[in-house]
Amino acid sequence: MLSARNQLPATVKSVKLGTVMAEVVVSVGDQELVAIITRGSAEQLDLKVGDSVKAIVKSTELMIDKS
Amino acid sequence: MLSARNQLPATVKSVKLGTVMAEVVVSVGDQELVAIITRGSAEQLDLKVGDSVKAIVKSTELMIDKS
Amino acid sequence: MLSARNQLPATVKSVKLGTVMAEVVVSVGDQELVAIITRGSAEQLDLKVGDSVKAIVKSTELMIDKS
Amino acid sequence: MLSARNQLPATVKSVKLGTVMAEVVVSVGDQELVAIITRGSAEQLDLKVGDSVKAIVKSTELMIDKS
Amino acid sequence: MLSARNQLPATVKSVKLGTVMAEVVVSVGDQELVAIITRGSAEQLDLKVGDSVKAIVKSTELMIDKS
Amino acid sequence: MLSARNQLPATVKSVKLGTVMAEVVVSVGDQELVAIITRGSAEQLDLKVGDSVKAIVKSTELMIDKS
Repeated sequence: MLSARNQLPATVKSVKLGTVMAEVVVSVGDQELVAIITRGSAEQLDLKVGDSVKAIVKSTELMIDKS
Repeated sequence: MLSARNQLPATVKSVKLGTVMAEVVVSVGDQELVAIITRGSAEQLDLKVGDSVKAIVKSTELMIDKS
Repeated sequence: MLSARNQLPATVKSVKLGTVMAEVVVSVGDQELVAIITRGSAEQLDLKVGDSVKAIVKSTELMIDKS
Repeated sequence: MLSARNQLPATVKSVKLGTVMAEVVVSVGDQELVAIITRGSAEQLDLKVGDSVKAIVKSTELMIDKS
Repeated sequence: MLSARNQLPATVKSVKLGTVMAEVVVSVGDQELVAIITRGSAEQLDLKVGDSVKAIVKSTELMIDKS
Repeated sequence: MLSARNQLPATVKSVKLGTVMAEVVVSVGDQELVAIITRGSAEQLDLKVGDSVKAIVKSTELMIDKS
């Protein structure tokens, strides 16, 4: 069990590989989220369009915007 | 317009103030997310239960978990 | 209003695009700061040399060094 | 020499200690920045009002906002 | 499998609870590391001195210092 | 003295340069850690295989996983 409390069920929409980094777009409900992970991790996880994953973020990284 | 691309419409469920930090629980669809911000920011934003806000996270902070 | 309390008026000095990421150098007073954002965000913001922007950082990301 | 490229000369304006965390307000030129560090680090650094310090942030943590 | 690639086997040495945050000191080999997580996470994980855990950090959060 | 309390003596095992970012693999004891820094920082530090460095992480970035 991971201490990071924000874990959203998501589906992989696209994976773009750079030399070092990778951009993973996932859908969470009707929202899209962009995750930047290393290319190495994207390859180790063998991420493919349609994969069921979780998008996880440590609570100290979330910000709040109020209009 | 902010470079952080992950911006989720959310509703404030609870605010807990510590001496320095504050814990803000928001609902996003049927999920709950926890944001840790400073107490000072929570007070400046005058966050209250029921407020409509956005939960924002920089894409470099998102992780992916695949079972 | 964003919970991230550190917002510095800045001017874009250079933008370097990689496949996935982008490096944005800005000047803040007589200092230079380097921001790494996604290439997608740099393009959406249409960042160009000379643009007036704000450099923003969540307070939990700041460190203090004392000699 | 630290890889974090953003290092701003700063002066400590206030230190507020919580049980676990500490809020350090510093001035950088005519701007104020808020740094959240552990109480333990604030005590180890013996941070006091008027101290000359550097405020440091990893470039991946900086965001850009353009109106 | 989590995209965060840095996972160090560790043993809990101490847990200090604040109102909002918690400080968890772990040993990794002959080193000590300090993790700041939410009090809520510390309680959900039921962290106790002597627990075998993993200390995890996303690779974008690691810095390098070279003398 | 830096407020970031987690500083692990490490040895550089590999450096991979992208356009914007660089991946630095270091060994810490018998563990490997991956650090993502800017290509600019990797070049300024002149990082080479075999270099003795420190891997540093702010305590707010560490997560705990307990099985």
